[in-house]
Amino acid sequence: MVNRIEHIGIAVNNINDANILFEKLLGVPSYKTEKVESENVVTSFFQTGTNKIELLMATNPESPIAKFLEKKGEGIHHIAFDVDDIGAEIARLKNEGFVLINENPKLGADNKMVVFLHPKSTNGVLVELCQEIR
Amino acid sequence: MVNRIEHIGIAVNNINDANILFEKLLGVPSYKTEKVESENVVTSFFQTGTNKIELLMATNPESPIAKFLEKKGEGIHHIAFDVDDIGAEIARLKNEGFVLINENPKLGADNKMVVFLHPKSTNGVLVELCQEIR
Repeated sequence: MVNRIEHIGIAVNNINDANILFEKLLGVPSYKTEKVESENVVTSFFQTGTNKIELLMATNPESPIAKFLEKKGEGIHHIAFDVDDIGAEIARLKNEGFVLINENPKLGADNKMVVFLHPKSTNGVLVELCQEIR
Repeated sequence: MVNRIEHIGIAVNNINDANILFEKLLGVPSYKTEKVESENVVTSFFQTGTNKIELLMATNPESPIAKFLEKKGEGIHHIAFDVDDIGAEIARLKNEGFVLINENPKLGADNKMVVFLHPKSTNGVLVELCQEIR
């Protein structure tokens, strides 16, 4: 099972503008900016309680975020759940009929191994599973 | 400021099918189903850590969820933040330039007073603020 919501990912056109906006909204500043090469994105993180908000800006047109923005515009992109054993969760969810976008965990932002479930198997919701690298 | 993510709202076509799917995904069953007359929706709640997932199905075509489903299909509908003093937050956010959908808090699901910020002022994200009724 999943432990908890780790973060919510939000696709933005301009990360500097979005940082200002979300600082006003949440009442706290971004605590980290990080480039994720595997996804062609720059990310920015805000802490809200025990969860995070992750802003995502594409760094080139090949980024999944560039494609999302082109198709749907700015908005909530994905929901990420923290898991203890990502390999076991992948096996469990595949067995339940969920479709994975990547079958093998890859290096995500914020020191995590991540996989994504395809929205077609999760009611239109792009779901990320992430496990902290220890 | 906002305290934390209270829940994530997900628009679904069929709440019974979605309950089965999200129970498989999250590894826990829905703990509550509740009709919200003011929004013309049926909701179903799952606990994940300190946050909740709220599934939303329209009960008639006038529901905001019916309109969302027609326009965008199933998927993440809103993100809700817990606040201590919804009146003070409304004043603060209006002063910061955010646009409210309803200016006066109304009765939401799960024993809460709620307001929504318009996505046009929040990077395409429908933001709910909610305060527990004590």
